Amino acid sequence: MIMFKKVAIIGVGLIGGSIGLAVKKKKLAQNVIGVARRRSTLRKALRLKSVDAATLSIKKAVEKADLVIIASPVDKIVHLAGECVKFMKKGAILTDVGSTKSFIVYGIEKIARGKVNFIGSHPMAGSEKNGVEHADANLFDKAPLIMTRTKNTDVKSLGKLKRFWMALGCRNLIMSPAKHDYIVSKASYLPHAVSLALTLSQTGDSMKIAAGSLKDATRVSSSDPKLWSDIFLSARKPIIKSIRDFMNKLTVLDKAVRGKDRARLRRLLDKAKRSRDRIR
Amino acid sequence: MIMFKKVAIIGVGLIGGSIGLAVKKKKLAQNVIGVARRRSTLRKALRLKSVDAATLSIKKAVEKADLVIIASPVDKIVHLAGECVKFMKKGAILTDVGSTKSFIVYGIEKIARGKVNFIGSHPMAGSEKNGVEHADANLFDKAPLIMTRTKNTDVKSLGKLKRFWMALGCRNLIMSPAKHDYIVSKASYLPHAVSLALTLSQTGDSMKIAAGSLKDATRVSSSDPKLWSDIFLSARKPIIKSIRDFMNKLTVLDKAVRGKDRARLRRLLDKAKRSRDRIR
Repeated sequence: MIMFKKVAIIGVGLIGGSIGLAVKKKKLAQNVIGVARRRSTLRKALRLKSVDAATLSIKKAVEKADLVIIASPVDKIVHLAGECVKFMKKGAILTDVGSTKSFIVYGIEKIARGKVNFIGSHPMAGSEKNGVEHADANLFDKAPLIMTRTKNTDVKSLGKLKRFWMALGCRNLIMSPAKHDYIVSKASYLPHAVSLALTLSQTGDSMKIAAGSLKDATRVSSSDPKLWSDIFLSARKPIIKSIRDFMNKLTVLDKAVRGKDRARLRRLLDKAKRSRDRIR
Repeated sequence: MIMFKKVAIIGVGLIGGSIGLAVKKKKLAQNVIGVARRRSTLRKALRLKSVDAATLSIKKAVEKADLVIIASPVDKIVHLAGECVKFMKKGAILTDVGSTKSFIVYGIEKIARGKVNFIGSHPMAGSEKNGVEHADANLFDKAPLIMTRTKNTDVKSLGKLKRFWMALGCRNLIMSPAKHDYIVSKASYLPHAVSLALTLSQTGDSMKIAAGSLKDATRVSSSDPKLWSDIFLSARKPIIKSIRDFMNKLTVLDKAVRGKDRARLRRLLDKAKRSRDRIR
């Protein structure tokens, strides 16, 4: 079902390309136009049919668009939003898919206010791969997606964007940017930081015998270092807090082992099992 | 190819049952006999054809056996080895599959010396499931397996046992019990401790949005709490050391984030990616 006449996707990498594929597959728009910085990316996106048209020009892409989705690296989102707002029609919807929200949402709201309706989005989908060549129309199927709501949010646009993401298969949650950053840092940035530290603390020999648990626990260490440096720095405070919470829990476990406190250790392991079993 | 006339497996759970299935599938023994503490387990093991015969009596099982494999929980292994040695024929091979080695190997060597040839084994295979109903003849396919060698090790038996594990599909490594405990604690116990602390530091909301990285990183928290409490306590020293090493690496990462040190962060992430990419 057509929800928007024209959708523009700024940045056609793994996420942007997958959105394009999904929108076209589900026929949610008459026209999907993609923007990239490099001609080679545009050619790839067109060849993979992840967009109907592709351009290097933000102006051309966002003019007359009903929905503009910024799917660039996080450190470029606010700047790109400024470029989009210049050329978007009044009252159109602007969103992003950045994985950090407070900085982005409050930054863009200042620019967008009175012109376009901005709502932050964060689909929790992806993989350690990147690039439009790995795009997948089913990437968002059952993926949790957080949309942000602030005192400036246009409720009608929020409802429309919510239906759009649902049509792509997402399970939507709506919360404040600060709440988003805190729980995402626990659920996504912290596992990443922990995976990195775990990888860095291995030796050649211990890597040689890596079985399931070490492989699983270190898998995300293969992700793009540039992307993750940006994420860590743009969400410093919640990450630092999450690392501190985590260190406290590990210290409790360590103390039980040091103190040969079998009963305490059992209680901790039982508690963790109950918690993890719930998300099987 | 028949390597042993009679193989006895003490403890027919996931690992013991899988060894039985694999030995029978590859026809490595004329007769595989399983021992359990409960009749219900024996019946299950027989029904699943993971052993040819089953008994509650260690004496009956190990008499005349050429190879005895103790596949019980780690805290029972030394005691069970004492029972086995009483009834085993002189010069037969005794091994265990416990995931901690110094304590077990030096404990059993004292009992076995001059009677049977003991060699510690540790196949790095398994899953968060347990019980003979999850046994799998292919569980050991390409699994790393460490055999221990000490000054008391009978080299001929070591060679024979090595060929046995290879026939089951294992990739064998031979090292001292202390070296084993150190690298296993890094590769297997540390990821487990880290997974537990990561699970314990989540909230209800953050678990709700758990995507791939958190699910992968916490998967082993669903393992048997009793089994893992035993492992943590029986390998206290290497675990404590591994946790300390890990905390140091996480602190380095945390400092780079706190100090907004983008260059340092990139170097850490690049290093972790190179290391992890090697074990893809």
